[in-house]
Amino acid sequence: MSKTGVRSHIESLQGYAPGEQPQASKYLKLNTNENPYPPSPQVEPAVLNAVRRGLERYPDPLATAFRIQAGLQHNVPPEWILCGNGSDDILTIVTRAMVGEGDYLRLPHPSYVLYRTLAQLQNAKYQEVQFDRTWNLPAAFTSGTPVPKLAFLPNPNSPSGTMLRVEQVDEIAQQLPCPLLIDEAYVDFAETHCIELVRRHAHVMVSRTLSKSYALAGLRFGYLIAQPSLIQQLIKVKDSYNCDALSIAAATAAISDPDWLNQNRQRIIEQRERLTQAMRQRGFDVPNSQANFVWCEKASTDLKQLYEKLKENRVLVRYMRYEGWPEGIRISVGTAEQMDALLAILDTIQPPR
Amino acid sequence: MSKTGVRSHIESLQGYAPGEQPQASKYLKLNTNENPYPPSPQVEPAVLNAVRRGLERYPDPLATAFRIQAGLQHNVPPEWILCGNGSDDILTIVTRAMVGEGDYLRLPHPSYVLYRTLAQLQNAKYQEVQFDRTWNLPAAFTSGTPVPKLAFLPNPNSPSGTMLRVEQVDEIAQQLPCPLLIDEAYVDFAETHCIELVRRHAHVMVSRTLSKSYALAGLRFGYLIAQPSLIQQLIKVKDSYNCDALSIAAATAAISDPDWLNQNRQRIIEQRERLTQAMRQRGFDVPNSQANFVWCEKASTDLKQLYEKLKENRVLVRYMRYEGWPEGIRISVGTAEQMDALLAILDTIQPPR
Repeated sequence: MSKTGVRSHIESLQGYAPGEQPQASKYLKLNTNENPYPPSPQVEPAVLNAVRRGLERYPDPLATAFRIQAGLQHNVPPEWILCGNGSDDILTIVTRAMVGEGDYLRLPHPSYVLYRTLAQLQNAKYQEVQFDRTWNLPAAFTSGTPVPKLAFLPNPNSPSGTMLRVEQVDEIAQQLPCPLLIDEAYVDFAETHCIELVRRHAHVMVSRTLSKSYALAGLRFGYLIAQPSLIQQLIKVKDSYNCDALSIAAATAAISDPDWLNQNRQRIIEQRERLTQAMRQRGFDVPNSQANFVWCEKASTDLKQLYEKLKENRVLVRYMRYEGWPEGIRISVGTAEQMDALLAILDTIQPPR
Repeated sequence: MSKTGVRSHIESLQGYAPGEQPQASKYLKLNTNENPYPPSPQVEPAVLNAVRRGLERYPDPLATAFRIQAGLQHNVPPEWILCGNGSDDILTIVTRAMVGEGDYLRLPHPSYVLYRTLAQLQNAKYQEVQFDRTWNLPAAFTSGTPVPKLAFLPNPNSPSGTMLRVEQVDEIAQQLPCPLLIDEAYVDFAETHCIELVRRHAHVMVSRTLSKSYALAGLRFGYLIAQPSLIQQLIKVKDSYNCDALSIAAATAAISDPDWLNQNRQRIIEQRERLTQAMRQRGFDVPNSQANFVWCEKASTDLKQLYEKLKENRVLVRYMRYEGWPEGIRISVGTAEQMDALLAILDTIQPPR
C-alpha cells in the first residue's frame, strides 16, 4: 500500500481551496459572497427551541419540516426536495450517484472551481466548455464526445454573475445527452429561475443554498429540487442523518419568512447596481450581475497587486485567474457602508483621474 | 442513459435503513443507542452564543476550536484530528479516500450494517469475517485474499457490545496489509480505548462520535484521530465546510465538560449492568456489554414477535437478524425509570415463571 493508504489520484490532488476565511480578524470581507446582514429574526428562536427540545435524539433523516415549507415556497410537493449539509453536500451526492471512475462531467469555464474537484475525487474526468466573451455558452456545451454522465450549469454563474435565460437553459437541457444540474446558489438575487424545467424534464435538477440569500452560510443547508424518482435514488447516497436538528429548525424558519428574503434581496440588488456603476466609472469592465457579487476586469491594471493592496488595507476580495481568461477580481456586495468603505479605500490605492 | 441517470450499482442498491426514528410520537425509544439524558448544560449557552455571533459567515473549515479541545482531552495535537458531520461523514470520507471501484473493504460480521453500504456506494466489494460465538475475531480477519484496501473494526462492536482488548487490536493492526479504522462510537462506555495505537501506527485511525456518550445525536458531530500526514489527505476529500458553526460551538462545549461525561457514563453503566442481569434472569443470553446497549438472544423465543409486541406496547427496541447468526434484539440502555418500564412491559408479554 502507499504510505498513507490513500488512493493515488487523491494523493496527487491539490484539493479545493475555499476563499480565505479569517476567523478572528477585522477584515471587510467581500471575498466569499456571504450576505452582509444577519438572517431572518425567526432563526434565533427556532434554534433555541430546537436546543431546548433536546439534542440527544437523531434528527429527522429527511428534514420533513423543511421539505414541506420549501415545497410551499416553490409550489412542488415535499417529495421533490432533497436536503443537504450545504449545497456542496448536494453536489457531492449527485456526482457520486451519477459519475463513476473514468466517466466525464461537463462543466462551463470559468465557473465554480469546486465542480472540478468533485470529478477528481471520484477519479472521474471533466470537460470544460469555455464561455464566450459575453458569458454565453457555445453549442459545444451540449454536443461533443465523450458523452458525459452529468453536466453542471451554475445560473447565475460565478465569477461573472451573469445568467442564461430560462429558454436557453431549457434548450441546453433538451440537447444534453445526460442529466443537468442547474446550480441556483445565487438565483434569489436574479429575476428568473429554472424550477419549471424540473417539472418539464425528469433529468433536470435545481440546487439551492441558504448560504447566500438567506444569510446562513454558517449553518450549512442546501437542497435539491428534482422529480421524486430521482430523489429516491439520491437518498440512498446521502449520509443517513446529513442535516442536524439545529440546522433543520433554523432553515425551516428562514425559508418560511419570504418577507425577510424580499427585503434582503432589495437591499443587495440596490448596492449591486451602485457597485457596478462605481466600478465602471473607475474603468473596470463589469458584466451585468444577477448575483450578490460583481466581476471586475481591467486590462490596464495589475489586479493581483490591487487585490494585495486591498488586503493590506483590510479589505478582502477574491482575485481569480482562470486559464484562457483575463484575470479579475470578484467583489461580494455588502451593506451601503461597506461599499462606501471599499470605494474609498480603492480610491486611495488608485486615485481617480 | 438510464431513466434517472443514476449509476446502475446504486439503482440496484437497497440502501442503508437506519433504525426507526418516529419524530412525533410517544415511544419509549430504545432502538438506536441514543443517550436518554440531555447533553452537558454547557451546550445550550454555546449554541445561543454562536447564533448571536451570527450565521451569515462561513464556519471555520477545520473546526479549530474543537480540534484544540479534543486534542487536550486525548493528549494529541490538533493536527491529528479531523472533524466530520457525524462519524458517518468520517467513515464516508475515509472510504472514499481509500477504496475505489472493485476494491475490497474488510469487515467483521455481525457488525454495523452501514459499512457494507459504504462499500456498495463506492461500487467496491466487501469481505466479511464472522465473529466466533464468543465475539472474538478469527485470524482470517487479517489474512486472506484479495488484499483489502481498508478494514473497519468497531470496538465496542454493535450489536454485541463486546470488545477486543487493546493488545488484540494492536496485533490485528500489525498483521493487516491495509489501513485499519477502529470505530470507537461506544468507547466512552468501555474501560479501554485504542488511541495509543494511532500514536504507534501510521495506518491506524480511531473514529469517535458525540452522538452517544455526549447525548448529541441531533447535532451530527464526529471526529477521526490519525497521524497528520493522513489527516492532510483526508481533508481534501471532505466537503470544505462539513461542520456548521452551531455544531462546532456545541461540540466544543460538550467535549470541554469531562465531568458531565463521567457522570453520564456512570449512570449508563449502572443501568447497563442492571439490564444485563435482568435479561439473563429472564432467560436471555446476553454477552457482557462495554457499550450503551445489550444484545439479547433466546433460542426458545420468537424474538421478531417479541419485538413487535413491545412495539405494540410503545417500546421500540432493535430486532436484528444477521445471516449465519441467531436472531436477537438490541436494547439501548436508558434511565432507571425507562428500564423499569421496559422490564414491566416485557413481563406482561412474557410472564416470568
